Amino acid sequence: MNAEIVSIGTELLLGQIVDTNAAYIAERLAELGINLYHRTTVGDNKERLLQVLQRSLERADVVITTGGLGPTDDDLTREIIAEVMGVDLVKDEKLVKQIESFFEKLGREMTENNLTQAYLPVGAEPIINEEGTAAGIILEKDDKIIISMPGVPTEMKQMMRKEVIPYLKGQIGNKQLIKSKVLKVCGYGESSLETEIKDILDNQTNPTIALLASKAEVHLRITAKADVEKEASYLINQVEVELRERLQDNIFGVNEESMEEVVAKRLNKKGLQIAIAESCTGGLIGHRLTNIPGSSSYFERGVVSYSNQAKQELLQVSAQTLKEHGAVSRETAKEMAKGVKELAKTGLGISVTGIAGPGGGSEEKPIGLVYMGLAVGNKTQSFRFKFHGRRQQIKYLTSQYALDKLRRYLEGNLEL
Amino acid sequence: MNAEIVSIGTELLLGQIVDTNAAYIAERLAELGINLYHRTTVGDNKERLLQVLQRSLERADVVITTGGLGPTDDDLTREIIAEVMGVDLVKDEKLVKQIESFFEKLGREMTENNLTQAYLPVGAEPIINEEGTAAGIILEKDDKIIISMPGVPTEMKQMMRKEVIPYLKGQIGNKQLIKSKVLKVCGYGESSLETEIKDILDNQTNPTIALLASKAEVHLRITAKADVEKEASYLINQVEVELRERLQDNIFGVNEESMEEVVAKRLNKKGLQIAIAESCTGGLIGHRLTNIPGSSSYFERGVVSYSNQAKQELLQVSAQTLKEHGAVSRETAKEMAKGVKELAKTGLGISVTGIAGPGGGSEEKPIGLVYMGLAVGNKTQSFRFKFHGRRQQIKYLTSQYALDKLRRYLEGNLEL
Repeated sequence: MNAEIVSIGTELLLGQIVDTNAAYIAERLAELGINLYHRTTVGDNKERLLQVLQRSLERADVVITTGGLGPTDDDLTREIIAEVMGVDLVKDEKLVKQIESFFEKLGREMTENNLTQAYLPVGAEPIINEEGTAAGIILEKDDKIIISMPGVPTEMKQMMRKEVIPYLKGQIGNKQLIKSKVLKVCGYGESSLETEIKDILDNQTNPTIALLASKAEVHLRITAKADVEKEASYLINQVEVELRERLQDNIFGVNEESMEEVVAKRLNKKGLQIAIAESCTGGLIGHRLTNIPGSSSYFERGVVSYSNQAKQELLQVSAQTLKEHGAVSRETAKEMAKGVKELAKTGLGISVTGIAGPGGGSEEKPIGLVYMGLAVGNKTQSFRFKFHGRRQQIKYLTSQYALDKLRRYLEGNLEL
Repeated sequence: MNAEIVSIGTELLLGQIVDTNAAYIAERLAELGINLYHRTTVGDNKERLLQVLQRSLERADVVITTGGLGPTDDDLTREIIAEVMGVDLVKDEKLVKQIESFFEKLGREMTENNLTQAYLPVGAEPIINEEGTAAGIILEKDDKIIISMPGVPTEMKQMMRKEVIPYLKGQIGNKQLIKSKVLKVCGYGESSLETEIKDILDNQTNPTIALLASKAEVHLRITAKADVEKEASYLINQVEVELRERLQDNIFGVNEESMEEVVAKRLNKKGLQIAIAESCTGGLIGHRLTNIPGSSSYFERGVVSYSNQAKQELLQVSAQTLKEHGAVSRETAKEMAKGVKELAKTGLGISVTGIAGPGGGSEEKPIGLVYMGLAVGNKTQSFRFKFHGRRQQIKYLTSQYALDKLRRYLEGNLEL
């Protein structure tokens, strides 16, 4: 079964609104195993809306629209879907009552134009709107289906959950279902990862594997089609095992898991507390780790030692180290990590010091050069990175790779 | 002149990504006065991509695409726009060099597939990508124009600003020029701001004023149409004066200026250094202030005193204060601000302490309760906020309103 999504509203074409509805509906369709090949956005214009809907109905079995169901003159969806399906509009008395009682509850007076929302194409089923006056529409005719919902996300989502998804399930009779799982990778670029696993990618038909470059990480989405959940899971698992053998601990998480979430889990599991000394990241690592609820259980304190004085006073970095090796050096990174760990009396201390740019770079120490320190017990280790990009990208990459090193250590894949 | 936007990528059809690019481009087109009647999203599929582009070229003078310019096999844009425009692809030696030097800078090895990004349709102009390896493409043929950019938002935006918008301005020959200016407001919600300036909004035709709710701030976009730049500037200025009279220092910045950027300018102007004590924000305020190049001139250090012990040891918050008033209190906020200022020996100290949730809330101290401390010389002041939202929203709102208070003080609009 093929579907298309048509988002209706001039405000979308003016860029005043980001179309989150289309993404939400698309994701639900994927879960149902319904193919979506086209998404179209069109304004509040009779002729163009008619053309777009005609075209979509030629290509797809189901056309799902959002927007244009309001009470005002520029809301054309009701009228145009009736026209495109070749039926008339009739007043639905049940809807009239619902709209009237909605305004009663609100204690607001109903203006006449609200009753335009009580009209339905002949043969259509209304979709109840629990949060507004614009009912949705399901219209079947000649093996084609049009489903229309309001553009207000909360109203659309409630209709999807309660009526549209169950309806579509009935239509496809659960013929085939789609299941997918995302493996998140840190330490590869998109193209180097593709090269690394090209043979696996090339041999895939079901499940398929999609590479998706994201911020400082790459996602591998494994998508399987099967008749039953269990079979899909089995297919996905086979590929996952193969990918994990190849990529080992470069895979840091699955599905929605973020890097900071994974690190938080590992710290909690080991009952470890951490202290962080940041220079070039300015607090970003602490910020990311405290985005996770309950972070006080593992995060004791952070020091943003932006000045050399702060490095010396709070972290006991020696003046000699700063003089001989500079603030951006293995030696300083190590002393910072050790210093913050001892200051906070935690089991773990990490540090980063680097040059985020645009200023401060040199031949010997270019922009993007970053050192990380990791202190555990009486051991201290340092790591060197060379990142590329603008100031904020370098800051983010630094936080990502520092958290990733920490993760690898906590997972027992990094010897100090 | 009519344009269409085609967003390319199966991940968009699977709903894995919300298409913010299309909204950004649509908004720029509106500012340029270029009509946009259709937006289409299509997956990484040769045949369908070809059909969609053909259809768009029939309807529009300019077709702008995003996505599908990567180095991997499912990136088809380059190949298909050459086909739809009836030209061949040729290797561009300048692009080869750029890609090679990009990897050199990165210190990473270049895999062969990256060189596919050096191919261009015959007659096309490359759009330089300062942040990645995927160059954009501008291709003119037979009164039609295709402009292709990568799907990575930062790369696309940089190309729009630097090359595409100036190019399109040239194409429309500035018949009527459109100029706009954004005033950024902190301290109002969208609807309360609309109510506050409704009379001004209602009387506007040229310039128009658009309200746009953004993250923890509201933007007022003033857009004027005129024959000459000078006239447009004059029209905008008249409205700006009126809005500034009404909203006073609730307007914190203009156009691209961020809150942290404005605060940084004020600190530099006064030659003041600041130290920051953060609790619930975990480092976010320091992170935002250090996103601005040259931040070392005003940011001395930060302390993320997540534990009470850290508050006592580093910031000299008294055990009695914590015992009597708790960590989230006016008194603790004041002692934190004073403590970090004295620790760093800076002219200014600020602090935040609050409950970001989801846990830790109580009847008396609910989730979203935040206190901020501001210490200058021997004066200390505290401010109380009550925010709504999830953990990360509350963290961001806290950072925004703390920076805004600091800004108002630095601008002489806040007495201690």
